[in-house]
Amino acid sequence: MTATPSIIPALEWRYATKQFDPAKKIPDAEVHELTESLRLSASSFGLQPWKFIVVRDPALRAKIKEHAWNQSQVTDASHLIVLAARKDIHDDYIRKFVTATAKARNTTIEALKGYEDIMLGTVRNMPPEAITAWNQRQVYIALGTLLLTAAQKGIDACPMEGFDPKKVDEVLGMTDYTVTALCPIGYRASTDKYAGAAKVRFPASEIVEYC
Amino acid sequence: MTATPSIIPALEWRYATKQFDPAKKIPDAEVHELTESLRLSASSFGLQPWKFIVVRDPALRAKIKEHAWNQSQVTDASHLIVLAARKDIHDDYIRKFVTATAKARNTTIEALKGYEDIMLGTVRNMPPEAITAWNQRQVYIALGTLLLTAAQKGIDACPMEGFDPKKVDEVLGMTDYTVTALCPIGYRASTDKYAGAAKVRFPASEIVEYC
Repeated sequence: MTATPSIIPALEWRYATKQFDPAKKIPDAEVHELTESLRLSASSFGLQPWKFIVVRDPALRAKIKEHAWNQSQVTDASHLIVLAARKDIHDDYIRKFVTATAKARNTTIEALKGYEDIMLGTVRNMPPEAITAWNQRQVYIALGTLLLTAAQKGIDACPMEGFDPKKVDEVLGMTDYTVTALCPIGYRASTDKYAGAAKVRFPASEIVEYC
Repeated sequence: MTATPSIIPALEWRYATKQFDPAKKIPDAEVHELTESLRLSASSFGLQPWKFIVVRDPALRAKIKEHAWNQSQVTDASHLIVLAARKDIHDDYIRKFVTATAKARNTTIEALKGYEDIMLGTVRNMPPEAITAWNQRQVYIALGTLLLTAAQKGIDACPMEGFDPKKVDEVLGMTDYTVTALCPIGYRASTDKYAGAAKVRFPASEIVEYC
């Protein structure tokens, strides 16, 4: 890995965009790079308990907006990325993952038995609602990955938790997954007054400790 | 924001490092850049409900390791980053944040009253355990930011959920915060057989949908 320029400036540059320019569209190749950043994100055991939906359809986005406090970013941004978590992890999902691992690493399912048993032991000991919560936390890793990847590319985003998950699940026909975060992506409007507002972060002296 | 090289290669390069080279230390300036990436991470309402502890002390790390399935990364990595979430968000925390916002943006607390009321309304309607869970999800955004920032700099990491939070809270003397993830950072050992293992990710056709 060669050293690359700092990505701190990208983090300084990004902000939760309030007004997107509806006329500016992200090129398909860049949208693909963003979805790849989601797909490649880290997750517990590497289980990837998620699904990502890129919503372009204006009618669908208008319906989602109704259940997202009518926030204009949902319809005005170039694309709407929906981040959803699996509701549960059954044995068959773990086995599917182990099979994929064996294939990718040119080994056998038997050789991965110890690993499989640890994962099975973990999920069998968790109540269903704890599994959903666990999966949702993983989705937030992917959200962090997406926000930084977008910022690094000069693409604006507005991560959102302000929506009715049950309603948005319904609109998208979700049954095995539940919508965990919405992230409109695109380009800030020149009129967004928040674009120039100073970022508010507590000083390192308050939130970073060394010991 | 000028276009920068893709960070997908960094995501391809990273993996949950199993064996760190205990002799290789991350320079202080780079550790600082990693903690800055945490500090600058996005969070709901920008509330930053977190604390990050960089643990260098070998004795402390040995104690944490005891409560983290004895995973050698905790003591062998160059540094151990502990990511902790606030257990609760009281009115006074929101007011502190509003005060910081007014100061950073050169405005008055009164001008931010609407924003403050939305935040107060949100947290007053949440049971305490839901607030902790919400804060922990935000910490996972910071974790995603950290992992990508580290990878981009050629620094290895191993995000971990496998530890006893109550015990690690005790070891670190945490009361208002709870340890949510551990992340040893450093450089992979040449003997780590997982360094060369193919990354296992489900194909985009299974986890990315367009509509």
